[in-house]
Amino acid sequence: MQLGRVIGDVVATRKDPGLEGITLLLVQPLTAAGAAAGRPLVAVDSVGAGVGEHVFFVRGKEASFPFHPTEVPADAGIVGIVDHWNAVGSDGASVTTASTDARSDGTSVPPTPA
Amino acid sequence: MQLGRVIGDVVATRKDPGLEGITLLLVQPLTAAGAAAGRPLVAVDSVGAGVGEHVFFVRGKEASFPFHPTEVPADAGIVGIVDHWNAVGSDGASVTTASTDARSDGTSVPPTPA
Amino acid sequence: MQLGRVIGDVVATRKDPGLEGITLLLVQPLTAAGAAAGRPLVAVDSVGAGVGEHVFFVRGKEASFPFHPTEVPADAGIVGIVDHWNAVGSDGASVTTASTDARSDGTSVPPTPA
Amino acid sequence: MQLGRVIGDVVATRKDPGLEGITLLLVQPLTAAGAAAGRPLVAVDSVGAGVGEHVFFVRGKEASFPFHPTEVPADAGIVGIVDHWNAVGSDGASVTTASTDARSDGTSVPPTPA
Amino acid sequence: MQLGRVIGDVVATRKDPGLEGITLLLVQPLTAAGAAAGRPLVAVDSVGAGVGEHVFFVRGKEASFPFHPTEVPADAGIVGIVDHWNAVGSDGASVTTASTDARSDGTSVPPTPA
Repeated sequence: MQLGRVIGDVVATRKDPGLEGITLLLVQPLTAAGAAAGRPLVAVDSVGAGVGEHVFFVRGKEASFPFHPTEVPADAGIVGIVDHWNAVGSDGASVTTASTDARSDGTSVPPTPA
Repeated sequence: MQLGRVIGDVVATRKDPGLEGITLLLVQPLTAAGAAAGRPLVAVDSVGAGVGEHVFFVRGKEASFPFHPTEVPADAGIVGIVDHWNAVGSDGASVTTASTDARSDGTSVPPTPA
Repeated sequence: MQLGRVIGDVVATRKDPGLEGITLLLVQPLTAAGAAAGRPLVAVDSVGAGVGEHVFFVRGKEASFPFHPTEVPADAGIVGIVDHWNAVGSDGASVTTASTDARSDGTSVPPTPA
Repeated sequence: MQLGRVIGDVVATRKDPGLEGITLLLVQPLTAAGAAAGRPLVAVDSVGAGVGEHVFFVRGKEASFPFHPTEVPADAGIVGIVDHWNAVGSDGASVTTASTDARSDGTSVPPTPA
Repeated sequence: MQLGRVIGDVVATRKDPGLEGITLLLVQPLTAAGAAAGRPLVAVDSVGAGVGEHVFFVRGKEASFPFHPTEVPADAGIVGIVDHWNAVGSDGASVTTASTDARSDGTSVPPTPA
């Protein structure tokens, strides 16, 4: 799975019937330091994530598992909302990044050493 | 899934029988800001997308779900036509990009702040 | 799927029994403008493609679909030979690229505006 | 599979029920020379790996195999803890990298020629 | 599939039971010209490949096919040892690269025009 932050949503009237009633969120992948990395993707959400929250998402067919037995044509799905994560940096220092560091304007607070 | 814009189509007389009668569209992946990013791919279409429209597409075996029970050898499929999407930028501002921003010449209009 | 051009083949005496009698071709992925992009890969072929031809190929388990019920351990397979493709460029102009533009020496002719 | 080093963990209260009780570790992918390469990812762990240890992990649906028959929505899983690996470098010299080369501060010791 | 060269192996005492008794090799992906490209990966081997040999490997669940019905949690597997491959270069010249071009020190010989 990858760390990400919900940065928006997608509205689509015409879509595959398997996606009816399913929330489509825009997710920005993040590095372990909380920085944006790579292209945002569209993920289905089964855990009630909101814009600005840190999440982790799964790619591939596994994204549709939470909707079983409905066959959802999805390849990315949010499967958890992050409380915080701990990462040892290249300098050996441990850093804790909390989801509540996300500001109301959607930008993230730089992580501080634990 | 990823955001994209339909930029063309592919014509193939000799192909796998599982692809007979299925529309093959060229899709340019997009960033959340609507800019082209990465290599265009060939996707099967089950929602009636046309050139110039914004869509989102799924990768992997899930691309063949809409054609079930036909076994379509496809790894990319358009599963929705985007009305619009909302994205919080790195500056915290929310931007809405509408599919109707696509001009008739196939280029996209730069998104404007909501 | 992705656009590509067949640039060669691979000969392997010792291989998985599931690959016996199956043609292994080297395929160079292409951009929508017909330029080489990324690393060539080894694909199984079920449509009779030859060196110099433009094709589109599928990645993942779907590559083995045409050989069903044989379990072929392949993750890339040519599923169609391209007659031509149409693509709207960033300048809004539509360009058609024909497979017959491939020269006998295996290089491609630059596409011309339609 | 890919080589990696465990650099931290992820704490999530709200998550897919299939992930309850499963350890989520942050893994930094490594080159054959033991250098960090690419973005850290979140992996499920079934072999008891700890922070600082060298591991190899699997991507895709296979990540959930060790938890069978539970349907775990995961796309990355640690499936082995590395004792050491041997790699022939571009200069033809063989280098052995041992997991115990990992220092207590989480950084790795540069490999030495065997 | 991708072309690669076996550059080493991985020793792991603690690992998923599905990997017991299975050889884990380090494989360096190669371009069609035989040059190293991208990060080495850990692949299971069912064809008896050795260090220095050119191989082609499959990614994804297909990597575990040769071990069926054992459920091997692997996403990369060597499925063939290359005798030689032929590739048309960007200059139109055909080049043959033989596995025996691999020197005893593990480096490859630059391919020569056929």
